[in-house]
Amino acid sequence: MKNRYLLLTVAIFSVLVIGCANAEKKTSGETVVFDLTISDDATPAVVERILQYQEKPIKAIKFNKGTYHFYPDKGYEKFAYISNHGDLMVNTPFPLEHFKNITIDGQGSTFIFHGVMIPFFIVNSENIMVKNLSIDWQDSFHSEGLIVANNVKNKTFDMQISDEYPYEIRNGQIYFIKEYYEHTLGQSILYDPKRKAIAFNTEAYTGITTFKTATTSHNTNNINYKYIVDKRDLEYKYLGKENRLFVEELKPGLVRVHGHGKKLPPVGLILSMKGTQGFNRTSPAFKITHVNGFNGENINIHHAGGMGLIAENSSDLILDCFNVTPSQGRMVSTTADATHFVGCRGKVVLKNCTFNNQLDDASNVHGTYQKIVDILGPNKLGVRMMHHQQKGFVIAQPNDTIGLVRLEKSFFPYGSLTVKDIKYINNRYQIIAFNETLPKELEVGDLIENLSAYPNLLVQNCTISNNRARGLLLSNPKNTVIEDNVFSTEMEALLLPVESSFWFESGNATNVVIKNNTFIDCQHSGFNKGVIRLVTDDNNEHIAFRNIIISNNTFKQFDNLILEVSNTDGLKFEKNVISNSETFPQLNPENPIVKIEKSKNLEFSDNENNGNATDFFEPDYK
Amino acid sequence: MKNRYLLLTVAIFSVLVIGCANAEKKTSGETVVFDLTISDDATPAVVERILQYQEKPIKAIKFNKGTYHFYPDKGYEKFAYISNHGDLMVNTPFPLEHFKNITIDGQGSTFIFHGVMIPFFIVNSENIMVKNLSIDWQDSFHSEGLIVANNVKNKTFDMQISDEYPYEIRNGQIYFIKEYYEHTLGQSILYDPKRKAIAFNTEAYTGITTFKTATTSHNTNNINYKYIVDKRDLEYKYLGKENRLFVEELKPGLVRVHGHGKKLPPVGLILSMKGTQGFNRTSPAFKITHVNGFNGENINIHHAGGMGLIAENSSDLILDCFNVTPSQGRMVSTTADATHFVGCRGKVVLKNCTFNNQLDDASNVHGTYQKIVDILGPNKLGVRMMHHQQKGFVIAQPNDTIGLVRLEKSFFPYGSLTVKDIKYINNRYQIIAFNETLPKELEVGDLIENLSAYPNLLVQNCTISNNRARGLLLSNPKNTVIEDNVFSTEMEALLLPVESSFWFESGNATNVVIKNNTFIDCQHSGFNKGVIRLVTDDNNEHIAFRNIIISNNTFKQFDNLILEVSNTDGLKFEKNVISNSETFPQLNPENPIVKIEKSKNLEFSDNENNGNATDFFEPDYK
Repeated sequence: MKNRYLLLTVAIFSVLVIGCANAEKKTSGETVVFDLTISDDATPAVVERILQYQEKPIKAIKFNKGTYHFYPDKGYEKFAYISNHGDLMVNTPFPLEHFKNITIDGQGSTFIFHGVMIPFFIVNSENIMVKNLSIDWQDSFHSEGLIVANNVKNKTFDMQISDEYPYEIRNGQIYFIKEYYEHTLGQSILYDPKRKAIAFNTEAYTGITTFKTATTSHNTNNINYKYIVDKRDLEYKYLGKENRLFVEELKPGLVRVHGHGKKLPPVGLILSMKGTQGFNRTSPAFKITHVNGFNGENINIHHAGGMGLIAENSSDLILDCFNVTPSQGRMVSTTADATHFVGCRGKVVLKNCTFNNQLDDASNVHGTYQKIVDILGPNKLGVRMMHHQQKGFVIAQPNDTIGLVRLEKSFFPYGSLTVKDIKYINNRYQIIAFNETLPKELEVGDLIENLSAYPNLLVQNCTISNNRARGLLLSNPKNTVIEDNVFSTEMEALLLPVESSFWFESGNATNVVIKNNTFIDCQHSGFNKGVIRLVTDDNNEHIAFRNIIISNNTFKQFDNLILEVSNTDGLKFEKNVISNSETFPQLNPENPIVKIEKSKNLEFSDNENNGNATDFFEPDYK
Repeated sequence: MKNRYLLLTVAIFSVLVIGCANAEKKTSGETVVFDLTISDDATPAVVERILQYQEKPIKAIKFNKGTYHFYPDKGYEKFAYISNHGDLMVNTPFPLEHFKNITIDGQGSTFIFHGVMIPFFIVNSENIMVKNLSIDWQDSFHSEGLIVANNVKNKTFDMQISDEYPYEIRNGQIYFIKEYYEHTLGQSILYDPKRKAIAFNTEAYTGITTFKTATTSHNTNNINYKYIVDKRDLEYKYLGKENRLFVEELKPGLVRVHGHGKKLPPVGLILSMKGTQGFNRTSPAFKITHVNGFNGENINIHHAGGMGLIAENSSDLILDCFNVTPSQGRMVSTTADATHFVGCRGKVVLKNCTFNNQLDDASNVHGTYQKIVDILGPNKLGVRMMHHQQKGFVIAQPNDTIGLVRLEKSFFPYGSLTVKDIKYINNRYQIIAFNETLPKELEVGDLIENLSAYPNLLVQNCTISNNRARGLLLSNPKNTVIEDNVFSTEMEALLLPVESSFWFESGNATNVVIKNNTFIDCQHSGFNKGVIRLVTDDNNEHIAFRNIIISNNTFKQFDNLILEVSNTDGLKFEKNVISNSETFPQLNPENPIVKIEKSKNLEFSDNENNGNATDFFEPDYK
């Protein structure tokens, strides 16, 4: 088995090297050099030249080293849906659409953005390289408050808010006011400024509870909907809810928060607040859609109002020394995932990257499940996007193979079809024509996934720490290698989920190699969960995960539980070294090292346990 | 002079008749007939056939007479900016884009829409006829409450809300919940159910005062903006404001409103509430953009969440028996203007129409002013859309004549240029290249308007009554004939404005004939203003209006003031008959019939005054 995954790694890199060499050869056009004369607002000059691309081809855009500001006022605008983001109207200085073989080289420059913008908007393009630059925002899309007091009797806590986070209070609600943007308290989590990381056991205190049930309504239950309604979508966001917090200003910059329902945040910690879910992801740093070949190299993303990079329906994406780290004394870097790949194929490589302090996962690799709602002919289906964050996503290209899935029966497709044509009707509804006749067993309510749109994934020599949420979410039935990385995450370092009915993120994991990684104090925010977890949200015995190898890793954990396995057929856990870090008090000392459910063909061998756990397995594991 | 405008009228009609005849001859393609088998949700079948138009041309779409429901779930989606509306994402069953010579004939059918949809989305098309159908919505975009009590001491009023307007209360604010939509109390006005019209003197009571100044803010004044900021735009909507009302439920369907700042609404009247300005216009019935030739005939629009018809950059638009009237016992028809024309040219005709009970003007005809913010070369300008409701509007086509305007100097252009090319950068900023060199006197800060994009306007034999706001807003320097109409509006029947610095709606009125109309009890909502007003919002002596004829009209008014004239050179007011209606008590008995400012060459002759006014002119008018 060891030989198999080594060979895979080698194969991936061979393709990679050849790919890059080809890209270099094909470049043509002029090299555009921008200098600091445009630094006050580089947007108009950059937009002007980029819009001339088709008539005057460009092989490279270089920036003389320095700091460049980018304002939205004269930025190029383009409508777009973006997976797991909320906004449709993109404003960007780099509208790279139908670009080919171009390098953008910051030569060490820093780009400072102002307001709701997307620094790099790259769509329907090929072989794009962006390198040697840092991205930051003048005003952040989140705000931070230092907890300076709390009062258990009155159930209040006090926050000191520095001048860099202007605010106003409207009807007892705090709004943080930015250049071109504002946000509520909304989604929040505690940081420990000493560790510059998510606070230990933050789950006991956060998220600050902002909503409660609204109790007065009249006749609203009699509203009838003809079709499926997604009550999580933004138009229903506040239905049946009202604010439960009350915020008052004690003196300028010092506010008292009443009405929090969890434990009161401890003094000395910093509360990061990023506004209401669904409205707080408007400005990822890189949006990449239908791009074949993207290289991001020596990039530092210090902030973004959303993800560092969101890639959709793209292939061959290589991030090398592509870092997400905070700046300007902020606890937080990006306000959502560092990177996120939806429906990507070919190879996806993250190497030598640091993903620190972002407010969501370091990476999430998956496809989408969409629901069959209409059988429209012998080879035609009407499908519905189920999750509102996937609205507008087109699941496939002609000739892609679509898997037909009925999760009550299996996590693996019961059949497949190839796409002839997709007609986009609206962001929720598309009509797919197939080359073949629909199988007889197909029923309205079944799901589809795109079996052609999963990648060969390599995550190598990366450091993932101090962020909210997970390290890597892996829903990839192709091949995945996770090696030589360091993880210190407040939730799972590695989560292999099948999340079919909440997020509708498709992809049961198969052929996953996790080796030579170091895991330090993961799951420290208070969840009673493993560092590596394989889980499904459908409660059945079917197999979701196959051929998983976890070997030669080092676990330095404050608590016992390392691995949770469920619905798995074929897993090796070997030559791993487990020790106790003593960094934090143990939260769940009764836990074993490994929990297993609904699984078979598991091998555990040559692991070294120097930790505190009494049991390797749960006592009743046979 | 009389001969001149008669000739104009005849000329308009000759073109009209010929135009229609030509359209009939050119049609080709199949006639599609839909029947009631699709009536439960006609959207998917209609969308499917319309999307096949290019391969399978259509000359007519007919509906067998009946009631058809249209849901958005499978409606066609298209991004679009719409003047004076708030939404970008259109969902429509009739996406008529690049259509030519087609008739849609409802044959007397009623189309019932559900949620945020645009029934007819017609863009980049030619010779489109829609006829013989009624448009309504299952749930309205506004809500109505009957005032059942008020308490002067406690400053509260109570509203009975019927089951057709479900609501919930969140933190003391009422939200009306609809199928796919919700709205706040927001913009409101009183209706008198006996007259089924705007209540007399409603301005004393409404709009209900929903906002007050938020008093707590920290450091928000230190936010610096590099460029012009439009604080009226939606992202700044709530800046510095908070809710001032508090709503409580007394029993199901009965609510008490605290905190209103004007006089308490009288018992027995109906409060129409349509939600927060800027968010409450999502669903006009007809959106028409870049269409040359549109006929709407025998159309009844009973409701729309926005305007009945909004036409932009289009030409030759004929509405004949195109009516806006309420249904289902509602006080309100459309929640905004019945019709609105921005940058339209050729002829615009409204004849034999009824525009009743809409919540804004019956029609508004104007261009746009945009501000020169950058001089980018010898023949190139960067311009900014100043009003947020005009975002995304493209002011001109190649070869159009652009007027250069400096309002401190004149309401008429000081120069003109012809357009070579417009580059759309974003919804606020566009770059215009001209065929000529820019004149030396051109300065950043000057305005532009499109002199090619005004129409020959005829409004004939229409009834405009019971609506909020004005009858007709006319900012048209071409030719305008308003004849044989009946007006009964709560504000001006006819407003000829130059609104350069608030709405940025361009067009100083010239060559306007207003004859044989009947005006009944206009301006009854409490404003001390004339029935017909020519006004500018720039306080200077320059001439804005020329060659205005007001003749042979009948005014049956409860109050004295008929005509306000300002900044006018050349106006005849002759053979008009004025009487007193006694419908309402006089609000301003001290007024004369005519007020005049900054004007010259005015003629008043052969008018018959049977009304209550002591003075025809103000006492100091010489």
